[in-house]
Amino acid sequence: MRFDVFTLFPGLIEPYINESILERARMRGLLEVHVHDIRAYATDRHHVTDEPPYGGGGGMVMKCEPIFNAVESVLGAPPACPVILLTPQGRVFTQQVAMELSQYPHLALLCGRYEGVDERVREHLVTDEISIGDYVLTGGELPALILMDAITRLIPGALGDPDGAIDDSHASGLLEYPHYTRPAEFRGWKVPEVLLSGNHAEIARWRRRQALLRTLQRRPDLLEKAPLSEEDRKFLEQVRKSPDESGA
Amino acid sequence: MRFDVFTLFPGLIEPYINESILERARMRGLLEVHVHDIRAYATDRHHVTDEPPYGGGGGMVMKCEPIFNAVESVLGAPPACPVILLTPQGRVFTQQVAMELSQYPHLALLCGRYEGVDERVREHLVTDEISIGDYVLTGGELPALILMDAITRLIPGALGDPDGAIDDSHASGLLEYPHYTRPAEFRGWKVPEVLLSGNHAEIARWRRRQALLRTLQRRPDLLEKAPLSEEDRKFLEQVRKSPDESGA
Repeated sequence: MRFDVFTLFPGLIEPYINESILERARMRGLLEVHVHDIRAYATDRHHVTDEPPYGGGGGMVMKCEPIFNAVESVLGAPPACPVILLTPQGRVFTQQVAMELSQYPHLALLCGRYEGVDERVREHLVTDEISIGDYVLTGGELPALILMDAITRLIPGALGDPDGAIDDSHASGLLEYPHYTRPAEFRGWKVPEVLLSGNHAEIARWRRRQALLRTLQRRPDLLEKAPLSEEDRKFLEQVRKSPDESGA
Repeated sequence: MRFDVFTLFPGLIEPYINESILERARMRGLLEVHVHDIRAYATDRHHVTDEPPYGGGGGMVMKCEPIFNAVESVLGAPPACPVILLTPQGRVFTQQVAMELSQYPHLALLCGRYEGVDERVREHLVTDEISIGDYVLTGGELPALILMDAITRLIPGALGDPDGAIDDSHASGLLEYPHYTRPAEFRGWKVPEVLLSGNHAEIARWRRRQALLRTLQRRPDLLEKAPLSEEDRKFLEQVRKSPDESGA
Protein backbone atom coordinates (compact mmCIF):
# COMPACT_ATOMS: atom_id res chain seq x y z
CA MET A 1 0.00 0.00 0.00
CA ARG A 2 1.23 3.47 -0.86
CA PHE A 3 -0.09 6.75 0.54
CA ASP A 4 0.74 10.18 -0.88
CA VAL A 5 -0.22 12.89 1.59
CA PHE A 6 -0.58 16.50 0.43
CA THR A 7 -0.53 19.08 3.20
CA LEU A 8 0.55 22.57 4.21
CA PHE A 9 1.91 21.10 7.46
CA PRO A 10 4.20 18.14 6.76
CA GLY A 11 5.49 18.51 10.31
CA LEU A 12 2.15 17.24 11.60
CA ILE A 13 2.30 14.06 9.52
CA GLU A 14 5.92 12.96 9.63
CA PRO A 15 6.32 12.18 13.35
CA TYR A 16 3.43 9.76 13.27
CA ILE A 17 4.62 7.77 10.28
CA ASN A 18 7.93 7.24 12.06
CA GLU A 19 6.26 5.68 15.09
CA SER A 20 3.32 3.41 15.78
CA ILE A 21 1.84 0.87 13.44
CA LEU A 22 2.70 2.91 10.36
CA GLU A 23 6.38 2.65 11.14
CA ARG A 24 6.16 -1.10 11.77
CA ALA A 25 4.33 -1.66 8.48
CA ARG A 26 6.93 0.43 6.64
CA MET A 27 9.75 -1.58 8.19
CA ARG A 28 8.06 -4.77 6.99
CA GLY A 29 7.94 -3.38 3.46
CA LEU A 30 4.13 -3.34 3.47
CA LEU A 31 3.67 0.40 3.40
CA GLU A 32 5.15 3.46 1.70
CA VAL A 33 4.20 6.97 2.77
CA HIS A 34 5.21 10.09 0.85
CA VAL A 35 4.46 13.49 2.32
CA HIS A 36 4.28 16.50 -0.01
CA ASP A 37 4.33 20.12 1.06
CA ILE A 38 1.72 21.95 -1.02
CA ARG A 39 3.52 25.23 -0.42
CA ALA A 40 6.46 24.01 -2.51
CA TYR A 41 4.10 23.89 -5.51
CA ALA A 42 2.90 27.50 -5.30
CA THR A 43 4.38 29.25 -8.32
CA ASP A 44 4.24 32.87 -7.18
CA ARG A 45 7.14 34.58 -5.48
CA HIS A 46 5.70 34.48 -1.98
CA HIS A 47 4.39 30.90 -2.18
CA VAL A 48 0.86 32.01 -1.34
CA THR A 49 -1.39 29.01 -0.72
CA ASP A 50 -4.51 30.64 0.68
CA GLU A 51 -6.44 33.86 0.31
CA PRO A 52 -9.67 35.38 1.63
CA PRO A 53 -12.90 33.99 0.13
CA TYR A 54 -14.76 35.66 -2.71
CA GLY A 55 -17.96 37.16 -1.33
CA GLY A 56 -16.38 38.03 2.03
CA GLY A 57 -16.58 36.30 5.39
CA GLY A 58 -13.94 35.15 7.84
CA GLY A 59 -11.17 32.62 7.36
CA MET A 60 -8.94 31.80 4.44
CA VAL A 61 -9.53 29.47 1.50
CA MET A 62 -6.90 27.21 -0.01
CA LYS A 63 -6.18 28.19 -3.61
CA CYS A 64 -6.64 25.76 -6.50
CA GLU A 65 -3.36 26.21 -8.30
CA PRO A 66 -0.86 24.95 -5.72
CA ILE A 67 -3.09 21.94 -5.00
CA PHE A 68 -3.56 21.00 -8.67
CA ASN A 69 0.18 21.52 -9.25
CA ALA A 70 1.18 19.37 -6.29
CA VAL A 71 -1.17 16.47 -6.98
CA GLU A 72 -0.63 16.40 -10.75
CA SER A 73 3.16 16.75 -10.48
CA VAL A 74 3.33 13.70 -8.24
CA LEU A 75 0.51 11.56 -9.60
CA GLY A 76 -0.03 12.73 -13.20
CA ALA A 77 -3.12 14.28 -14.81
CA PRO A 78 -5.58 12.82 -14.21
CA PRO A 79 -4.06 11.33 -11.04
CA ALA A 80 -3.21 7.64 -11.18
CA CYS A 81 -5.06 6.77 -7.95
CA PRO A 82 -8.08 7.92 -5.93
CA VAL A 83 -7.61 11.41 -4.47
CA ILE A 84 -9.39 11.69 -1.13
CA LEU A 85 -10.13 15.08 0.38
CA LEU A 86 -10.45 15.01 4.16
CA THR A 87 -13.36 17.32 4.86
CA PRO A 88 -16.29 17.57 7.28
CA GLN A 89 -18.52 17.50 4.20
CA GLY A 90 -17.42 14.04 3.09
CA ARG A 91 -19.05 10.66 3.56
CA VAL A 92 -18.63 9.39 7.09
CA PHE A 93 -15.60 7.18 7.72
CA THR A 94 -16.44 3.79 9.26
CA GLN A 95 -14.73 0.42 9.50
CA GLN A 96 -16.64 -0.54 6.34
CA VAL A 97 -15.07 2.37 4.45
CA ALA A 98 -11.64 1.47 5.84
CA MET A 99 -12.07 -2.06 4.46
CA GLU A 100 -13.17 -0.70 1.09
CA LEU A 101 -10.17 1.65 0.87
CA SER A 102 -7.70 -1.03 1.99
CA GLN A 103 -8.36 -2.80 -1.32
CA TYR A 104 -6.55 -0.07 -3.27
CA PRO A 105 -2.78 -0.36 -3.75
CA HIS A 106 -2.36 3.43 -3.78
CA LEU A 107 -4.28 6.36 -2.28
CA ALA A 108 -3.71 10.10 -2.22
CA LEU A 109 -4.87 12.03 0.85
CA LEU A 110 -5.42 15.76 0.52
CA CYS A 111 -5.47 17.66 3.81
CA GLY A 112 -7.56 20.80 3.59
CA ARG A 113 -7.76 23.57 6.07
CA TYR A 114 -11.15 22.94 7.53
CA GLU A 115 -12.18 26.55 6.82
CA GLY A 116 -12.22 25.57 3.20
CA VAL A 117 -10.63 24.51 -0.04
CA ASP A 118 -11.53 26.21 -3.31
CA GLU A 119 -14.60 24.41 -4.64
CA ARG A 120 -12.92 23.72 -8.00
CA VAL A 121 -10.55 21.32 -6.26
CA ARG A 122 -13.54 19.28 -5.09
CA GLU A 123 -15.23 19.41 -8.47
CA HIS A 124 -12.32 18.69 -10.77
CA LEU A 125 -9.49 16.99 -8.89
CA VAL A 126 -10.82 15.09 -5.92
CA THR A 127 -12.47 11.69 -6.46
CA ASP A 128 -13.70 11.02 -2.92
CA GLU A 129 -14.43 13.09 0.20
CA ILE A 130 -14.30 11.65 3.68
CA SER A 131 -15.22 12.98 7.12
CA ILE A 132 -14.00 11.19 10.24
CA GLY A 133 -16.86 12.52 12.37
CA ASP A 134 -19.30 15.34 13.04
CA TYR A 135 -16.96 17.82 14.70
CA VAL A 136 -14.90 20.80 13.61
CA LEU A 137 -11.13 20.47 13.35
CA THR A 138 -8.39 22.83 12.25
CA GLY A 139 -7.25 20.83 9.25
CA GLY A 140 -7.23 17.49 7.51
CA GLU A 141 -3.91 16.30 8.94
CA LEU A 142 -5.26 14.36 11.94
CA PRO A 143 -8.05 12.84 9.80
CA ALA A 144 -5.41 11.72 7.25
CA LEU A 145 -3.48 10.01 10.05
CA ILE A 146 -6.69 8.37 11.28
CA LEU A 147 -7.34 6.95 7.81
CA MET A 148 -3.77 5.71 7.42
CA ASP A 149 -3.85 4.04 10.84
CA ALA A 150 -7.21 2.33 10.30
CA ILE A 151 -6.37 1.19 6.76
CA THR A 152 -2.83 0.03 7.56
CA ARG A 153 -4.19 -2.24 10.31
CA LEU A 154 -6.10 -4.09 7.59
CA ILE A 155 -3.07 -4.83 5.41
CA PRO A 156 -2.31 -8.56 5.82
CA GLY A 157 0.79 -8.91 8.00
CA ALA A 158 0.81 -5.32 9.29
CA LEU A 159 -0.27 -6.38 12.78
CA GLY A 160 2.19 -8.68 14.46
CA ASP A 161 -0.68 -10.86 15.67
CA PRO A 162 -2.82 -12.16 12.80
CA ASP A 163 -5.93 -12.45 15.02
CA GLY A 164 -5.49 -9.10 16.69
CA ALA A 165 -7.90 -7.21 14.46
CA ILE A 166 -10.76 -9.70 14.47
CA ASP A 167 -12.29 -9.07 17.90
CA ASP A 168 -11.73 -5.33 18.05
CA SER A 169 -14.71 -3.12 18.65
CA HIS A 170 -16.42 -2.30 15.33
CA ALA A 171 -14.48 -5.00 13.46
CA SER A 172 -17.27 -7.50 14.29
CA GLY A 173 -19.99 -4.86 14.23
CA LEU A 174 -20.26 -5.06 18.04
CA LEU A 175 -18.43 -3.32 20.85
CA GLU A 176 -15.76 -5.46 22.41
CA TYR A 177 -16.13 -7.51 25.61
CA PRO A 178 -14.24 -6.43 28.77
CA HIS A 179 -10.54 -7.23 29.09
CA TYR A 180 -8.62 -8.17 32.20
CA THR A 181 -4.99 -8.90 32.86
CA ARG A 182 -2.83 -9.46 35.93
CA PRO A 183 -3.13 -9.02 38.85
CA ALA A 184 -6.19 -11.20 39.50
CA GLU A 185 -7.08 -8.85 42.35
CA PHE A 186 -6.33 -5.13 42.49
CA ARG A 187 -7.52 -3.01 45.46
CA GLY A 188 -10.08 -5.71 46.18
CA TRP A 189 -11.50 -5.67 42.63
CA LYS A 190 -11.38 -9.17 41.19
CA VAL A 191 -11.22 -10.58 37.68
CA PRO A 192 -14.45 -12.47 36.78
CA GLU A 193 -13.99 -16.11 37.72
CA VAL A 194 -14.95 -17.53 34.37
CA LEU A 195 -11.81 -15.98 32.83
CA LEU A 196 -9.63 -17.93 35.26
CA SER A 197 -11.52 -21.20 34.71
CA GLY A 198 -9.61 -22.47 31.69
CA ASN A 199 -12.94 -23.50 30.15
CA HIS A 200 -12.59 -22.07 26.67
CA ALA A 201 -16.16 -22.68 25.56
CA GLU A 202 -17.50 -20.93 28.67
CA ILE A 203 -15.08 -18.04 28.18
CA ALA A 204 -16.11 -17.62 24.54
CA ARG A 205 -19.79 -17.64 25.54
CA TRP A 206 -19.23 -15.10 28.33
CA ARG A 207 -17.32 -12.81 26.02
CA ARG A 208 -19.92 -12.95 23.27
CA ARG A 209 -22.66 -12.15 25.76
CA GLN A 210 -20.67 -9.29 27.26
CA ALA A 211 -20.10 -7.86 23.80
CA LEU A 212 -23.82 -8.10 23.05
CA LEU A 213 -24.80 -6.59 26.41
CA ARG A 214 -22.36 -3.73 26.11
CA THR A 215 -23.48 -2.93 22.59
CA LEU A 216 -27.10 -3.04 23.70
CA GLN A 217 -26.43 -0.66 26.58
CA ARG A 218 -24.11 1.79 24.86
CA ARG A 219 -24.70 1.66 21.12
CA PRO A 220 -28.00 -0.07 20.35
CA ASP A 221 -27.80 1.52 16.87
CA LEU A 222 -24.96 -0.89 16.03
CA LEU A 223 -27.06 -3.98 16.81
CA GLU A 224 -29.34 -3.27 13.87
CA LYS A 225 -26.52 -3.86 11.40
CA ALA A 226 -24.40 -6.43 13.25
CA PRO A 227 -24.40 -10.05 12.04
CA LEU A 228 -26.14 -11.98 14.84
CA SER A 229 -26.66 -15.71 15.34
CA GLU A 230 -29.89 -17.31 16.46
CA GLU A 231 -28.36 -17.73 19.93
CA ASP A 232 -27.36 -14.05 20.01
CA ARG A 233 -30.93 -13.04 19.23
CA LYS A 234 -32.38 -15.27 21.91
CA PHE A 235 -29.96 -13.89 24.47
CA LEU A 236 -30.82 -10.29 23.59
CA GLU A 237 -34.52 -11.03 23.74
CA GLN A 238 -34.11 -12.54 27.18
CA VAL A 239 -32.10 -9.51 28.39
CA ARG A 240 -34.69 -7.10 27.09
CA LYS A 241 -37.40 -9.00 28.99
CA SER A 242 -35.57 -9.37 32.31
CA PRO A 243 -32.32 -7.39 32.39
CA ASP A 244 -31.28 -8.70 35.82
CA GLU A 245 -31.47 -12.39 34.97
CA SER A 246 -29.39 -12.43 31.84
CA GLY A 247 -26.76 -14.68 33.36
CA ALA A 248 -24.02 -12.75 31.60
CA MET B 1 -7.88 25.13 29.72
CA ARG B 2 -5.50 22.45 30.87
CA PHE B 3 -5.12 18.98 29.41
CA ASP B 4 -3.21 16.14 31.05
CA VAL B 5 -2.56 13.36 28.55
CA PHE B 6 -1.60 9.87 29.75
CA THR B 7 -0.06 7.63 27.12
CA LEU B 8 2.50 4.93 26.41
CA PHE B 9 3.63 6.94 23.36
CA PRO B 10 4.36 10.55 24.32
CA GLY B 11 6.24 10.87 21.04
CA LEU B 12 2.92 10.70 19.19
CA ILE B 13 1.43 13.59 21.17
CA GLU B 14 4.24 16.08 21.59
CA PRO B 15 4.87 17.08 17.95
CA TYR B 16 1.28 18.10 17.50
CA ILE B 17 1.06 20.30 20.58
CA ASN B 18 4.10 22.19 19.33
CA GLU B 19 2.43 23.02 16.01
CA SER B 20 -1.02 23.92 14.79
CA ILE B 21 -3.78 25.55 16.77
CA LEU B 22 -2.64 23.94 20.02
CA GLU B 23 0.68 25.71 19.83
CA ARG B 24 -0.94 29.07 19.04
CA ALA B 25 -3.33 28.72 21.99
CA ARG B 26 -0.45 27.80 24.27
CA MET B 27 1.53 30.84 23.11
CA ARG B 28 -1.48 33.03 23.93
CA GLY B 29 -1.59 31.59 27.44
CA LEU B 30 -5.00 29.99 26.85
CA LEU B 31 -3.89 26.38 26.97
CA GLU B 32 -1.58 24.16 28.96
CA VAL B 33 -0.82 20.58 27.87
CA HIS B 34 1.05 18.10 30.04
CA VAL B 35 2.00 14.74 28.58
CA HIS B 36 2.69 11.85 30.96
CA ASP B 37 4.39 8.59 30.03
CA ILE B 38 2.47 5.79 31.73
CA ARG B 39 5.53 3.56 31.52
CA ALA B 40 7.34 5.80 34.02
CA TYR B 41 4.70 4.82 36.62
CA ALA B 42 5.14 1.05 36.34
CA THR B 43 6.73 -0.02 39.61
CA ASP B 44 8.25 -3.34 38.60
CA ARG B 45 11.83 -3.66 37.42
CA HIS B 46 11.03 -4.04 33.74
CA HIS B 47 8.35 -1.32 33.61
CA VAL B 48 5.78 -3.74 32.26
CA THR B 49 2.62 -1.91 31.20
CA ASP B 50 0.71 -4.61 29.37
CA GLU B 51 0.23 -8.36 29.53
CA PRO B 52 -1.83 -11.03 27.77
CA PRO B 53 -5.54 -11.13 28.66
CA TYR B 54 -6.99 -13.51 31.24
CA GLY B 55 -9.02 -16.11 29.40
CA GLY B 56 -6.74 -16.15 26.37
CA GLY B 57 -7.06 -14.54 22.98
CA GLY B 58 -4.80 -12.31 20.94
CA GLY B 59 -3.40 -8.92 21.76
CA MET B 60 -2.22 -7.33 24.98
CA VAL B 61 -4.16 -5.57 27.71
CA MET B 62 -2.96 -2.49 29.55
CA LYS B 63 -2.49 -3.23 33.26
CA CYS B 64 -4.36 -1.30 35.97
CA GLU B 65 -1.52 -0.42 38.27
CA PRO B 66 0.63 1.83 36.06
CA ILE B 67 -2.48 3.69 34.90
CA PHE B 68 -3.88 4.23 38.42
CA ASN B 69 -0.39 5.26 39.60
CA ALA B 70 0.09 7.73 36.78
CA VAL B 71 -3.31 9.41 36.99
CA GLU B 72 -3.44 9.54 40.79
CA SER B 73 0.14 10.79 41.13
CA VAL B 74 -0.60 13.71 38.85
CA LEU B 75 -4.24 14.47 39.67
CA GLY B 76 -4.81 13.07 43.17
CA ALA B 77 -7.19 10.34 44.33
CA PRO B 78 -9.92 10.67 43.30
CA PRO B 79 -8.65 12.75 40.36
CA ALA B 80 -9.43 16.47 40.51
CA CYS B 81 -10.93 16.62 37.00
CA PRO B 82 -12.85 14.40 34.57
CA VAL B 83 -10.79 11.46 33.32
CA ILE B 84 -11.73 10.60 29.75
CA LEU B 85 -10.78 7.25 28.25
CA LEU B 86 -10.48 7.32 24.47
CA THR B 87 -12.05 4.04 23.41
CA PRO B 88 -14.19 2.70 20.57
CA GLN B 89 -16.72 1.76 23.25
CA GLY B 90 -17.34 5.32 24.41
CA ARG B 91 -20.11 7.74 23.56
CA VAL B 92 -19.67 9.20 20.10
CA PHE B 93 -17.77 12.49 19.87
CA THR B 94 -19.66 15.29 18.12
CA GLN B 95 -19.45 19.07 18.03
CA GLN B 96 -22.06 19.05 20.81
CA VAL B 97 -19.77 16.97 23.03
CA ALA B 98 -16.83 19.24 22.17
CA MET B 99 -18.87 22.24 23.36
CA GLU B 100 -19.85 20.44 26.54
CA LEU B 101 -16.22 19.51 27.32
CA SER B 102 -14.92 23.00 26.50
CA GLN B 103 -16.76 24.24 29.61
CA TYR B 104 -14.33 22.41 31.92
CA PRO B 105 -11.13 24.20 32.97
CA HIS B 106 -9.22 20.90 33.20
CA LEU B 107 -9.50 17.51 31.51
CA ALA B 108 -7.44 14.32 31.67
CA LEU B 109 -7.20 12.21 28.52
CA LEU B 110 -6.25 8.57 28.87
CA CYS B 111 -4.99 6.92 25.68
CA GLY B 112 -5.62 3.20 25.67
CA ARG B 113 -4.26 0.67 23.31
CA TYR B 114 -7.32 -0.10 21.30
CA GLU B 115 -6.88 -3.83 21.96
CA GLY B 116 -7.92 -3.05 25.49
CA VAL B 117 -7.44 -1.56 28.91
CA ASP B 118 -8.07 -3.59 32.03
CA GLU B 119 -11.76 -3.26 32.81
CA ARG B 120 -11.07 -2.07 36.36
CA VAL B 121 -9.65 1.16 34.94
CA ARG B 122 -12.98 1.84 33.25
CA GLU B 123 -14.98 0.91 36.30
CA HIS B 124 -13.03 2.66 39.04
CA LEU B 125 -10.88 5.45 37.58
CA VAL B 126 -12.39 6.74 34.37
CA THR B 127 -15.35 9.15 34.52
CA ASP B 128 -16.16 9.39 30.81
CA GLU B 129 -15.49 7.31 27.68
CA ILE B 130 -15.41 8.80 24.22
CA SER B 131 -15.14 7.33 20.72
CA ILE B 132 -14.28 9.57 17.78
CA GLY B 133 -15.96 7.25 15.26
CA ASP B 134 -16.90 3.71 14.31
CA TYR B 135 -13.52 2.47 13.13
CA VAL B 136 -10.63 0.54 14.63
CA LEU B 137 -7.41 2.39 15.49
CA THR B 138 -4.16 1.30 17.07
CA GLY B 139 -4.44 3.50 20.14
CA GLY B 140 -6.06 6.50 21.77
CA GLU B 141 -3.35 8.99 20.84
CA LEU B 142 -4.86 10.30 17.60
CA PRO B 143 -8.32 10.48 19.22
CA ALA B 144 -6.83 12.49 22.11
CA LEU B 145 -5.34 14.94 19.60
CA ILE B 146 -8.70 15.17 17.82
CA LEU B 147 -10.42 16.08 21.10
CA MET B 148 -7.79 18.65 22.00
CA ASP B 149 -7.99 20.24 18.55
CA ALA B 150 -11.80 20.43 18.49
CA ILE B 151 -12.06 21.68 22.08
CA THR B 152 -9.23 24.22 21.80
CA ARG B 153 -10.95 25.84 18.81
CA LEU B 154 -13.86 26.65 21.13
CA ILE B 155 -11.78 28.49 23.73
CA PRO B 156 -12.55 32.19 23.31
CA GLY B 157 -9.57 33.86 21.64
CA ALA B 158 -7.88 30.63 20.50
CA LEU B 159 -8.71 31.27 16.84
CA GLY B 160 -7.19 34.47 15.51
CA ASP B 161 -10.46 35.32 13.79
CA PRO B 162 -13.40 35.51 16.24
CA ASP B 163 -15.94 34.58 13.53
CA GLY B 164 -13.90 31.76 12.05
CA ALA B 165 -15.65 28.99 13.92
CA ILE B 166 -19.24 30.07 13.40
CA ASP B 167 -19.82 29.01 9.78
CA ASP B 168 -17.76 25.84 9.85
CA SER B 169 -19.45 22.61 8.87
CA HIS B 170 -21.16 21.04 11.90
CA ALA B 171 -20.86 24.24 13.97
CA SER B 172 -24.23 25.41 12.59
CA GLY B 173 -25.61 21.89 12.32
CA LEU B 174 -25.32 22.08 8.51
CA LEU B 175 -22.51 21.33 6.09
CA GLU B 176 -20.75 24.43 4.91
CA TYR B 177 -21.43 26.26 1.62
CA PRO B 178 -18.77 26.15 -1.16
CA HIS B 179 -15.73 28.41 -0.93
CA TYR B 180 -13.89 30.15 -3.72
CA THR B 181 -10.82 32.33 -3.82
CA ARG B 182 -8.62 33.83 -6.54
CA PRO B 183 -8.24 33.41 -9.44
CA ALA B 184 -11.79 34.15 -10.66
CA GLU B 185 -11.17 31.74 -13.51
CA PHE B 186 -8.96 28.66 -13.42
CA ARG B 187 -8.68 26.35 -16.47
CA GLY B 188 -11.98 27.77 -17.66
CA TRP B 189 -13.78 27.04 -14.37
CA LYS B 190 -15.34 30.24 -13.06
CA VAL B 191 -16.33 31.44 -9.63
CA PRO B 192 -20.16 31.82 -9.33
CA GLU B 193 -21.09 35.37 -10.32
CA VAL B 194 -23.06 36.14 -7.21
CA LEU B 195 -19.86 35.98 -5.15
CA LEU B 196 -18.31 38.72 -7.27
CA SER B 197 -21.44 40.91 -7.16
CA GLY B 198 -20.72 42.76 -3.94
CA ASN B 199 -24.41 42.28 -2.98
CA HIS B 200 -24.05 41.00 0.56
CA ALA B 201 -27.70 40.07 1.06
CA GLU B 202 -27.67 38.00 -2.14
CA ILE B 203 -24.39 36.36 -1.16
CA ALA B 204 -25.72 35.44 2.28
CA ARG B 205 -28.86 33.96 0.72
CA TRP B 206 -26.88 31.97 -1.87
CA ARG B 207 -24.58 30.59 0.81
CA ARG B 208 -27.43 29.59 3.09
CA ARG B 209 -29.16 27.80 0.23
CA GLN B 210 -25.95 26.06 -0.83
CA ALA B 211 -25.41 24.88 2.75
CA LEU B 212 -28.97 23.54 2.88
CA LEU B 213 -28.67 21.87 -0.53
CA ARG B 214 -25.37 20.27 0.26
CA THR B 215 -26.60 18.97 3.58
CA LEU B 216 -29.73 17.61 1.92
CA GLN B 217 -27.68 15.82 -0.74
CA ARG B 218 -24.87 14.50 1.42
CA ARG B 219 -26.07 14.24 5.01
CA PRO B 220 -29.86 14.41 5.17
CA ASP B 221 -29.59 12.95 8.69
CA LEU B 222 -28.16 16.29 9.89
CA LEU B 223 -31.19 18.27 8.67
CA GLU B 224 -33.41 16.59 11.23
CA LYS B 225 -31.52 18.21 14.09
CA ALA B 226 -30.38 21.49 12.51
CA PRO B 227 -32.08 24.74 13.57
CA LEU B 228 -33.97 25.87 10.44
CA SER B 229 -35.87 29.08 9.72
CA GLU B 230 -39.26 29.24 8.03
CA GLU B 231 -37.49 30.36 4.84
CA ASP B 232 -35.07 27.42 5.05
CA ARG B 233 -37.99 25.00 5.30
CA LYS B 234 -39.78 26.52 2.33
CA PHE B 235 -36.62 26.33 0.26
CA LEU B 236 -36.04 22.68 1.12
CA GLU B 237 -39.66 21.83 0.35
CA GLN B 238 -39.35 23.50 -3.04
CA VAL B 239 -36.10 21.60 -3.79
CA ARG B 240 -37.65 18.30 -2.84
CA LYS B 241 -40.55 18.96 -5.22
CA SER B 242 -38.52 20.15 -8.22
CA PRO B 243 -34.79 19.69 -7.71
CA ASP B 244 -33.84 21.43 -10.98
CA GLU B 245 -35.63 24.70 -10.34
CA SER B 246 -34.29 25.48 -6.90
CA GLY B 247 -32.55 28.64 -8.10
CA ALA B 248 -29.64 27.93 -5.79
